[in-house]
Amino acid sequence: MKLILSLVNSGSSRLGKLTDVGRHSEISMETPCCLLYTRCGLPPHLTHDVMNTLKRLPPVTQLTLPTLAESQDAVDGSPGGIGNFIGDTDTLHYLSLHDPGVQIASGYNEKSSVSIWVSAGRMKLQVEKYMSIQKSFKPDWYNALYDGDTPPGCSRKRVQKSINRTLTFLDKCLQIHEESDDLKNSKLFGVLVGGDSHEDRLYCTRETAKRPVAGFVLDGFQRSMMQEEARWKLMSQIVKELPEEKPRLVNGIGRPDDIINAVEAGIDIFDSSFPYEVTERGCAFAFVFKKHEGLDSESKDDKDDTDDCKQSTFESFMGSVPFDSKSTETCEKTEFEINLREQRYFDDFKPLVELCECYACQNHTRAYINHLLRTKELLGPLLLMLHNFHHYFEFFHELRESIRNGSLDIFKSLIKENQS
Amino acid sequence: MKLILSLVNSGSSRLGKLTDVGRHSEISMETPCCLLYTRCGLPPHLTHDVMNTLKRLPPVTQLTLPTLAESQDAVDGSPGGIGNFIGDTDTLHYLSLHDPGVQIASGYNEKSSVSIWVSAGRMKLQVEKYMSIQKSFKPDWYNALYDGDTPPGCSRKRVQKSINRTLTFLDKCLQIHEESDDLKNSKLFGVLVGGDSHEDRLYCTRETAKRPVAGFVLDGFQRSMMQEEARWKLMSQIVKELPEEKPRLVNGIGRPDDIINAVEAGIDIFDSSFPYEVTERGCAFAFVFKKHEGLDSESKDDKDDTDDCKQSTFESFMGSVPFDSKSTETCEKTEFEINLREQRYFDDFKPLVELCECYACQNHTRAYINHLLRTKELLGPLLLMLHNFHHYFEFFHELRESIRNGSLDIFKSLIKENQS
Repeated sequence: MKLILSLVNSGSSRLGKLTDVGRHSEISMETPCCLLYTRCGLPPHLTHDVMNTLKRLPPVTQLTLPTLAESQDAVDGSPGGIGNFIGDTDTLHYLSLHDPGVQIASGYNEKSSVSIWVSAGRMKLQVEKYMSIQKSFKPDWYNALYDGDTPPGCSRKRVQKSINRTLTFLDKCLQIHEESDDLKNSKLFGVLVGGDSHEDRLYCTRETAKRPVAGFVLDGFQRSMMQEEARWKLMSQIVKELPEEKPRLVNGIGRPDDIINAVEAGIDIFDSSFPYEVTERGCAFAFVFKKHEGLDSESKDDKDDTDDCKQSTFESFMGSVPFDSKSTETCEKTEFEINLREQRYFDDFKPLVELCECYACQNHTRAYINHLLRTKELLGPLLLMLHNFHHYFEFFHELRESIRNGSLDIFKSLIKENQS
Repeated sequence: MKLILSLVNSGSSRLGKLTDVGRHSEISMETPCCLLYTRCGLPPHLTHDVMNTLKRLPPVTQLTLPTLAESQDAVDGSPGGIGNFIGDTDTLHYLSLHDPGVQIASGYNEKSSVSIWVSAGRMKLQVEKYMSIQKSFKPDWYNALYDGDTPPGCSRKRVQKSINRTLTFLDKCLQIHEESDDLKNSKLFGVLVGGDSHEDRLYCTRETAKRPVAGFVLDGFQRSMMQEEARWKLMSQIVKELPEEKPRLVNGIGRPDDIINAVEAGIDIFDSSFPYEVTERGCAFAFVFKKHEGLDSESKDDKDDTDDCKQSTFESFMGSVPFDSKSTETCEKTEFEINLREQRYFDDFKPLVELCECYACQNHTRAYINHLLRTKELLGPLLLMLHNFHHYFEFFHELRESIRNGSLDIFKSLIKENQS
């Protein structure tokens, strides 16, 4: 895996191209970027066929262990690993330990195991089991087993335990990884943990950076895990300890304003669970990330009753999907969205976003999506998901363009305007 | 609306072409056929984009009042009626009073109103309200208001009440229809009710046939509404009273064997809620309707543990969709399906049906769909829905071919083989 940097700004934001990842050497990924969020290997509500209609589809798909681990035996019987099993052999696969769209339950990790929740319940993963799954799945890229359970206000003892276990897991994973023929095309990332303690974070980062990992995952920077003020400063300090040429991925940071802050701190890769969370609460991205003449005032118009929305916030479409009550990050509508359940959209015949080129905006109106949501029809979330992915991927494209043009500051102000 | 019959067999099965329906004079529909089942105007789980990949997509979409009535005021504000509102102006629209995929609650009809259930609860429809919705929606084709509430074992008094009310509703609907400018491009069908009483059925049929209706809807022939022995005989007798040149649609008959019996009785048009019901219980059509060498024995293989499946029969994906517990017809797996939740499919890497050309079969395996269903991921029903529609539409195509070739008897035996 190579990260070729084409531009590093006087701040720390950087433009790069990730190449030589796994089995598709012809696929590269421009950074900063997001991965394609999936559940069970497919984007929520959407087939690859439909996804392929999106212009800026990320070339790397994020698979999550909790939605796939139960089928290890079946994947073992399938030639070609997880890609073959999920019917997607065209994109690169990053397999993550946790699902970034789901809050991780605290208090379940043990000295030699980390717990994930699969549909049948809790699954304890020791290093041997974890690595045997990697050997069966053969992802292009995965992270080492880690203990990231440092909720806000936890003891320093807990933080240090999480670091020590994470480093021990990493060494064991690296050893098995290096000896495995099944994993010779897979890249292993180390995970940086340590809560909000500056000293502990630096220790964990330096120790991990000494190991032969292909890149780094920064964990614990989710809004729910750390005080707002501490986040970006700590992130910058950690990133300074990392070698330039290795990619940096952050877990669970999804809001456009947070993404820009993280990019300024030197982060390259994000997940895309945030558009899914927005979809799940019946909302559509409507934030402006590009100047279109005459449209700004209108999108302002759509954002003046956040309070209204809070009422329906915790309702979820996914009655039968486990974990729906645990979605991470913020469960409340942000300034970047409009809530299509609101009465004001009952007879609003505009598309979700004027000039948006996605299928939902090209074919359907806010009024119709409001109807689908009110009648709890599953096509509602499907159309929202398609729009939200489209909008999000376009945002990342513009973000890269702004770094390329040296106008990240202007881009940042534009994003901020959505919040006023 | 014209039904041009190209072939009427010595039995009563007939091959025809329905033309001049509503606003798209260029669209015609070969009969016998099914309509495209929708909820809120879109096929469950699928966008039109995806549906358009199906070779034999029905040119007439069935819209149902319970999933759309609440948005009458919004549709009123939308130019072009319901087609514009749902974002589908390419197909013809038949608007039915009830949803054929939902069992109708008994005991709620009154002298001057019929009840439907919308997402907010019960909605009483008097003729005036009902026809005002038709004027707002401007469907190409709809049925008159009717009272079909004659559950098995109900009194003769109830049957006669249902007939008298239905005829009164019909006359009022016809009057408003003829005077309305909004409905000048819409066709009105009369509904034939009367439970399982031969005499009452004949009365209702003859009275309806005297009126200037464009065609007929036979109601009350669902498996849950009538004894098996009585159904086909009574249906034949009713159909004999109807003019040849007007189309005949039957409500809620969806099993392949029932469809052939109904076609032999002279029925032209069916709904396609049955593939949706099959999907909802986690099953895929696997019945053989075409001879492929070497495949029969295999599909036999898939059908030997119906008992296993009954356990999961009443589980539904649609945790949040109202009415899911009321689905009509049979709620139990039929001999025409395989249950993808069964353990046997955990590592079965065949497509749902060998040689099937649908997207699901071309891209995914039974093992993967089994995984999606076990983890309750919404993509599971999506892939099943796509396959089940595809299989069903192909079945109707072969059914028409068999009438054309004079081989309906052979086709019937082939379908029967699936049940042995």
